[in-house]
Amino acid sequence: MEYEINPGSIEQESMAIIEKNIPFLAGLPDGERNIIKRIVHTTGDFDIAPLVKIHPRAVAAGLAALGGGCTIFTDVNMVLAGLNKKKMAALGVGATCRIADQEVVEEARRTGETRARLVMLNAGPLEGDIVVIGNAPTALFALCELIEAGAARPTLVIGTPVGFVGARESKDLLASMNRVPYITLPGTRGGSAIAAAAANALLYMK
Amino acid sequence: MEYEINPGSIEQESMAIIEKNIPFLAGLPDGERNIIKRIVHTTGDFDIAPLVKIHPRAVAAGLAALGGGCTIFTDVNMVLAGLNKKKMAALGVGATCRIADQEVVEEARRTGETRARLVMLNAGPLEGDIVVIGNAPTALFALCELIEAGAARPTLVIGTPVGFVGARESKDLLASMNRVPYITLPGTRGGSAIAAAAANALLYMK
Repeated sequence: MEYEINPGSIEQESMAIIEKNIPFLAGLPDGERNIIKRIVHTTGDFDIAPLVKIHPRAVAAGLAALGGGCTIFTDVNMVLAGLNKKKMAALGVGATCRIADQEVVEEARRTGETRARLVMLNAGPLEGDIVVIGNAPTALFALCELIEAGAARPTLVIGTPVGFVGARESKDLLASMNRVPYITLPGTRGGSAIAAAAANALLYMK
Repeated sequence: MEYEINPGSIEQESMAIIEKNIPFLAGLPDGERNIIKRIVHTTGDFDIAPLVKIHPRAVAAGLAALGGGCTIFTDVNMVLAGLNKKKMAALGVGATCRIADQEVVEEARRTGETRARLVMLNAGPLEGDIVVIGNAPTALFALCELIEAGAARPTLVIGTPVGFVGARESKDLLASMNRVPYITLPGTRGGSAIAAAAANALLYMK
């Protein structure tokens, strides 16, 4: 069977198919369009495009953070694995995920809560950083509480936790409290690949 | 805001919601039901359930491979990151992803093809192993060719590459050639989280 094997050609063809099949993309600013295209690309699903919700200052905030050599702080290792390391290295941007840290594992055993929540509670002020939560509603709930209390001050939150227990509510909270620029996907859908795709879209714009 | 923070309770509640909202799951054998539940859980999308396609011998083949201490061979690092390492260690199951290997990077630069395809072409016989392809259609195409030629003999292929360029065709080829038990998601949707979820469902059954 014949198939395209060149990554550049595959990517170009894929993006052209996405633009052709989602007419409303043409009317969006570049930043928003790039983010939604990446999310459609990583899910193979045109229907996800209108669900993506992007705060008006999210793109500018994300690009500023990346330009300032921020750290990208993730809830789970799948998000970390999905980030474009080459692009990050070129920009002097770091990334970290503490979910498998020994202290986190031990504290979770002691308190009986999710490791992803403890990762956020122990993350520090996150000043100027980008937080990318792709999996755990408990991590996004905790981050929202910290932001509300002034204890965390990230520049951008990409929050697309997934599932039927708290995901919808945690994303609604992120959007409704309106304390920080965000990229989110309201409802139950979400996941690490979607979160990483949004972060990568910003990385590719730099 | 009140929210559940115990991982066991979240998981239990989530699985109950999935069973309640997808009535046809009740009529499936345990193995198939567990795989589909995990895929719904990782996408937050009930509508994906009827799309999952599982070869009649896939569950038995997967469990046999895991019981034999196989290696789980992945196309990309996001799939590898999504596998349950604790469960794998308990079973003596290894996992590997060669996409960032120096030889792969250099060969891709020379030949102009995707790294994921080269990973498969250089994977060896894969005898008794489980191959999990969550991202790259080119990797699944290459694997199908190797299987057809008798050069690769994995016990199970979990193939859920994603996108608009080759994903559908590569998954149709996997199913139609019918040379190896498979778990797949026909069409454009797919991704690393879905592939890892299917593999984890098998791991949790052991």
